[in-house]
Order: sequence, then structure tokens, then C-alpha cells
Amino acid sequence: MRHILSVIFENKFNAIPRISGLFSGRGYNMNSMSFGEGEDPETTRATITSEGDDQIIEQIAKQLNKLVDVIKVVELTYEPFVERELALVKVQSSASTRAEIMQVADIFRAKIIDLSHKTITIEVTGKEDKVNAIIEMLQQFGIREIARTGIVALKREFQK
Amino acid sequence: MRHILSVIFENKFNAIPRISGLFSGRGYNMNSMSFGEGEDPETTRATITSEGDDQIIEQIAKQLNKLVDVIKVVELTYEPFVERELALVKVQSSASTRAEIMQVADIFRAKIIDLSHKTITIEVTGKEDKVNAIIEMLQQFGIREIARTGIVALKREFQK
Repeated sequence: MRHILSVIFENKFNAIPRISGLFSGRGYNMNSMSFGEGEDPETTRATITSEGDDQIIEQIAKQLNKLVDVIKVVELTYEPFVERELALVKVQSSASTRAEIMQVADIFRAKIIDLSHKTITIEVTGKEDKVNAIIEMLQQFGIREIARTGIVALKREFQK
Repeated sequence: MRHILSVIFENKFNAIPRISGLFSGRGYNMNSMSFGEGEDPETTRATITSEGDDQIIEQIAKQLNKLVDVIKVVELTYEPFVERELALVKVQSSASTRAEIMQVADIFRAKIIDLSHKTITIEVTGKEDKVNAIIEMLQQFGIREIARTGIVALKREFQK
């Protein structure tokens, strides 16, 4: 099962190795992690996804809470939330395939942000599975490079 | 000076702590790091930004290259490149401020992706300074939460 953890911590230079070390120390992979300045500029918010046993992730979340630099850990997995990921995909292209690639980009509401004689670079945002889907559709043209951000997520605020 | 490193490495569970540890070991902060599956599914691409002395960053890049899991390190700082970041911003809102918040979102071509009686959640993508600018404009309404991906970047392909 895919777990999503949102971790808010103080901007200390050793926070990331310590946070990521809690996963690797248990032989667990983070599928993705992305982070940047949080709502308070003294803090950073990281969004981490990991496939794994519910109990082990719960243990990791508890240990994260005990790290001195960590202010808050929220497990979003069981809550309603919005998630987004961004990817840049550089695809091989010639004059003859360009129109077809543009069509694929169009269908996924992706943007073309760079063009050369031999490549097109596409920016796409959406849920993880949408990003997977456009990458799969672009494979046929030959993908040169992909840079994915990993997902960010925030809890929905509606009340039942 | 802001440095941007693109690091491609094998999917090993201890790669992230080791990579991030190279920065913290020198007392250096990564301003952002984001990573996800690369063009080869056996690999991951991380984009790291760090403010710092050119020589120290160069040393870190060399040490990154020596890590067994690391396949390739590209310093994008001195090359033409495209960069993008994604942020989710949850802003306080009431019926009376909603129109004004929507106007700000519109100007930055941001999307509203969640709405409750008391909040609006906005998705924005762009260069780091654009994301900074919309966050600055939204501060006046009261920001509840921010989740930023950190930037991803790819080299431009044009030839001189």
C-alpha cells in the first residue's frame, strides 16, 4: 500500500539525512520525497511516499516524531487529500513526429517548454498516475530524460 | 550563488541518506531536493539546489560521482536549462475574499484544486521566483499550509 507522510521540520542541515536514514535503516525505500520551504520560512515541509507494511510505516512515523528537528508528522494515507506531481520529460522528435507528440501533450494538458531540432521538452502536472500515463504514451518516441518532483499533498478541508 | 545539480543514481534504499549526507557533512544546506523515477526505471533522478561557494559545491559534485550508486552528476548551473517547481498553497478564505484570491490565482495562471467554507487550495507551477511571488501575494489572506516540490531542471538542447 502506498503511504504518504507530510513531515514539517526545522531548517537544519542534517534533518534530511536523518529523516531519510530512518527509512533506509529499516531497509525501506522512499518512492519519492520532495521538500521546500513551509508556511513558516523557518521550517521545511517534506512529502514522502513509501510502499510498505502499515505497521512499519506507523513505527517510522512515530520515530520521525521523536527527531528533535521534526515539528509535526501527518500521515495523509487515510485522510481525504489533494496530491500533485510535476515532471519534465525530454522526448526525441523530428519534424515528422512533432505533431503527434504535441497531440499527446495536448490531451494530457501538458505544456511544451523547450524545443530543439531533435527534442521536445514537456512539462506535465497531475496525480502520480496521470504522470505515469503520459510517460508511457511518450515511450514510443524515445525518452531522453525525465525529471520528476515526486508528489506533494495537502489534506482536504471539507467537513462531513 | 544558487547551484543546481542533477544526480542520477541506482534505486538503492540508502542512496538518499548518503547523497544528502555529503551536503550535511560539510555543514551545507540543500535548499531543495526532489526526486523520482528516471528515464530508466532502475534509476532515480534527483535535482538538488544549494546556495554556496562554487569550489565547495564542485567538491561535493566530485564526491557524489564517487558514490557507488551514483551513475551521473550534472551541474546545470552554468548551462542553459529549463526549471520548474510545483507548490500547493492552502489559503484562508471567506465569501468576501474569495473573488480576490481567485484573481491572484488567475494572474499567475494557478489552478484552484480544493475549496471549503474557510479555505482555498491553489496549485501553481513555474520557476522558483514565480512560486515565491504568488506566495508573497497570498500572505495577506493568511496562508495555512504550503507544500513545495523543490525545482526540477533539464538542460536545454539547442546548439549554438
